[in-house]
Amino acid sequence: MQQRWDKISAWLREQQADAAFIHTTPNVFYLSQFFCHPHERLLRLFIFPEAEPFLVCPQMEVASARNAGWKNPVLGYDDVQNPWEMIASELAKRSVSAHATVAIEKEQLSYSRVEQLQAVIPHARFVSADEPLNRLRLIKDAGEIKLLREAAAIADYGVEVGISALKQGCSEMEVVARIEWEMKKKGIHEMSFSTTVLFGGKTAFPHGTPALAPLQPGDLVLFDLGVVLDGYCSDITRTVGFRSVNEQQQQIYETVLKAQQKALEQCRTGTIMGDLDRAARSVISDAGYGEFFPHRLGHGLGIDVHEYPSINETNDSPLQAGMVFTVEPGIYIQGLGGVRIEDDVLITREGCETLTRFPKELQII
Amino acid sequence: MQQRWDKISAWLREQQADAAFIHTTPNVFYLSQFFCHPHERLLRLFIFPEAEPFLVCPQMEVASARNAGWKNPVLGYDDVQNPWEMIASELAKRSVSAHATVAIEKEQLSYSRVEQLQAVIPHARFVSADEPLNRLRLIKDAGEIKLLREAAAIADYGVEVGISALKQGCSEMEVVARIEWEMKKKGIHEMSFSTTVLFGGKTAFPHGTPALAPLQPGDLVLFDLGVVLDGYCSDITRTVGFRSVNEQQQQIYETVLKAQQKALEQCRTGTIMGDLDRAARSVISDAGYGEFFPHRLGHGLGIDVHEYPSINETNDSPLQAGMVFTVEPGIYIQGLGGVRIEDDVLITREGCETLTRFPKELQII
Repeated sequence: MQQRWDKISAWLREQQADAAFIHTTPNVFYLSQFFCHPHERLLRLFIFPEAEPFLVCPQMEVASARNAGWKNPVLGYDDVQNPWEMIASELAKRSVSAHATVAIEKEQLSYSRVEQLQAVIPHARFVSADEPLNRLRLIKDAGEIKLLREAAAIADYGVEVGISALKQGCSEMEVVARIEWEMKKKGIHEMSFSTTVLFGGKTAFPHGTPALAPLQPGDLVLFDLGVVLDGYCSDITRTVGFRSVNEQQQQIYETVLKAQQKALEQCRTGTIMGDLDRAARSVISDAGYGEFFPHRLGHGLGIDVHEYPSINETNDSPLQAGMVFTVEPGIYIQGLGGVRIEDDVLITREGCETLTRFPKELQII
Repeated sequence: MQQRWDKISAWLREQQADAAFIHTTPNVFYLSQFFCHPHERLLRLFIFPEAEPFLVCPQMEVASARNAGWKNPVLGYDDVQNPWEMIASELAKRSVSAHATVAIEKEQLSYSRVEQLQAVIPHARFVSADEPLNRLRLIKDAGEIKLLREAAAIADYGVEVGISALKQGCSEMEVVARIEWEMKKKGIHEMSFSTTVLFGGKTAFPHGTPALAPLQPGDLVLFDLGVVLDGYCSDITRTVGFRSVNEQQQQIYETVLKAQQKALEQCRTGTIMGDLDRAARSVISDAGYGEFFPHRLGHGLGIDVHEYPSINETNDSPLQAGMVFTVEPGIYIQGLGGVRIEDDVLITREGCETLTRFPKELQII
């Protein structure tokens, strides 16, 4: 944790900024190990170029913050106290003046919170903390990798459960329910996003919603799911055939699989992310399906299920060891159906490790 | 819908404001019937004192907006277009100048979005649209009431399912999974919050999290759950005993039930909300448990599971016909357990209608 604060402090010094005000749950968790959904209440972390950081949270959460391992000062406030008065006094102790430069999460901090901060630091200049925080979270450490690996293994099991639940006439929602039930029995409280199981023609919609239509022979079945384990997310997609697949379905499956393998082969430090996207995309285009792959190749994965890096054609940054992201090409054809194959990948010094491991050869259930 | 816009337009004229910029999913849904989670993308609604409103959304969502019934102008933009340029041109057509007064959802609009808006309206003055929007959503119309009533009936069924799943040695998570499975089989995509099932000593924590500990005879079991139906939420809590309850558990149960009934008796137009809270609280205090009821009596319910009104001691506004809120007193004693009983209540011209109807006499399962 100290190491993470040190990086923020160093960045603040570079920016000649006087404080960072961190308020989103994922970033507070990243910098405190304390995961708390405070709803309307204020949960905030202040980090400084030199001074000791402090946390602000509802009084009833102070014990939880301590349990999570927070050893620095914490300001607890109850429903009748004004946390901003306490904050003002702590900032004054740390010589943060009325003309301070404050780094805030501009992308997510609400305008009213900025107004509250301005009441305490009237002539504040605000700089964006979004980018440095995203960059900091980009490279995962050993503890994070361990959790991401475990979360991926549970997602593998989720696909296994989903496949074993397929029966003619069952509904997408029943299969979702079965998967989430088995996840809960493993102690998973939260899926990393709304579990997606799609049958037949609905697989052609990259953002389709499960419903009650019955499974029919000849349907493609697409599973897209992930779990949150101790704050870290997984995300896997597999597509199978039910009873049979026709020739074109088989062809798009093989094309997507080849595209994914092509990309995975290039997952190593130094590869430009745009090239990685193009590697997969060119396989799909060469097979004549270019227009049916309408999304980027993948996205970073960590505390958020979508975070840095974005693996898309326009990203000209190189892969670095410690990055974790999805590789998920797809082909979606109205009337025929869609296929997507997605794995979570860790870039290592030696190459890469695929965290999700459910088999990928075409299965007919 | 026109009626809702008219109210916003009238409020804008009162404020001498030139436009309202609405960006949260619940408020956009309330004012357009279009429910869309645009993730990082921009989904926004502009309403004016006189001119026609317009919607801004990703091009791929335009058809969905039309399907949802949106008949006014909609600006669709793709991934390479800048929606703000399109917005600037539409605002200019409606004579919104560089010095305009714009109503925004200050509580939720991010600082970076405000900066984007300022790039288009450089000398904008911002007023808060939060309060008028919350007030507008406070009184439910017939269509909303119908959905809230149906959502409550499904929540009743969720409790029934949960109770029937109780078996010695089963875990909280298994019961959660069973409830959510049955909800999904009814076509429910989303619970209104994370389903809570707590056994034994954990019932003493108002925000406890389900886990894997086994159900034992003598445990209290607390269910707190709700569903989202076509955008509207329900929220019910019931507490039962497993195999047996001891004398003090029975006593706190009866006290909470009496407190809840006392409050329900006063649910009618004109009752001051603080008095409603005090009505329940005094029953609990008189029984000697005042310090063990640490939260407000209830909260409004609608598109959000927590919205206006807040039923707490300091609220001196009167109940009005069309308000829907929860009534949920509780007593939580470390070591002994907790009891909460929660219903969703609609204020009518004649009195009130309790939307959740699962029986409340103490059940020993």
